[in-house]
Amino acid sequence: MEIRKYKETDWSQVWPIIEKAFRAGETYPYSPEITEHEARKLWIVVPQEVYVATAEEGEILGTYYIKPNQPGLGSHVCNCGYIVSENARGKGVASGMCEHSQQVAVDVGFRAMQFNLVVSTNEGAIRLWKKLGFQVIGTLPKAFKSQSAGYVDALVMYKEIKT
Amino acid sequence: MEIRKYKETDWSQVWPIIEKAFRAGETYPYSPEITEHEARKLWIVVPQEVYVATAEEGEILGTYYIKPNQPGLGSHVCNCGYIVSENARGKGVASGMCEHSQQVAVDVGFRAMQFNLVVSTNEGAIRLWKKLGFQVIGTLPKAFKSQSAGYVDALVMYKEIKT
Repeated sequence: MEIRKYKETDWSQVWPIIEKAFRAGETYPYSPEITEHEARKLWIVVPQEVYVATAEEGEILGTYYIKPNQPGLGSHVCNCGYIVSENARGKGVASGMCEHSQQVAVDVGFRAMQFNLVVSTNEGAIRLWKKLGFQVIGTLPKAFKSQSAGYVDALVMYKEIKT
Repeated sequence: MEIRKYKETDWSQVWPIIEKAFRAGETYPYSPEITEHEARKLWIVVPQEVYVATAEEGEILGTYYIKPNQPGLGSHVCNCGYIVSENARGKGVASGMCEHSQQVAVDVGFRAMQFNLVVSTNEGAIRLWKKLGFQVIGTLPKAFKSQSAGYVDALVMYKEIKT
């Protein structure tokens, strides 16, 4: 697995991967009816940097973005989003992207990383972020409307990467 | 004190009030070098609704905005920002605006209210939000760069307004 910067020609592979996650409405808050244009804006245009994880043959296995979580006086804390292709689950892609993103964050000058809305039903993700050094700051009661489970709690998770 | 919807002719009074808070760099993350145009965009254009608190003679004492804190599946939780004019401190303006905003939130259909970055040094605000029923979800280590104190903690606060 290689992790490299996103380039425009990757979109045809990235969009189906993130579309599946957004349409499911279980892990990301974006409307399940989101358009391709809106998705491209929030995943590619707005973030500071975007990366893809690829297999040896060049197939894209996952993608992540990194951006400041707040403006100005909160901009030393970054936020990332990670999505792994359904075909590439259980191969360490999310773990690899998260570790990669922490190095990028350090290189770019961020001091911490924050996840604002980790859905409580997304147990695999929570376990992984904890393993990678993130702490649970707290739990937001019923802050996420899961398509399958209705209103569920969401966690704020955080890791200082430069102390 | 009356609290009413913001109208365009209020800007000449609202801008100096929020400018002072932003320039100080102690409570809001926006750059202390923010332009009037940028400030107008984030306080007036982006939010769903904006209100002002006025004295009997019409003088503006404070202002607040309300908007969804997340898109789509997180959009039932709102976020508000409140700023009181320096000349109007200690008169219950913040308290009045926060109570008003909770009623607006209910009326508009929000189910909870979240403050993402309550600066830990802003003790008066923390005390007030607690008094008004907000709970501290957790503390983000060094998530805010205070102009006077450097990196300081910030709190995530939350209140369910419809259960």
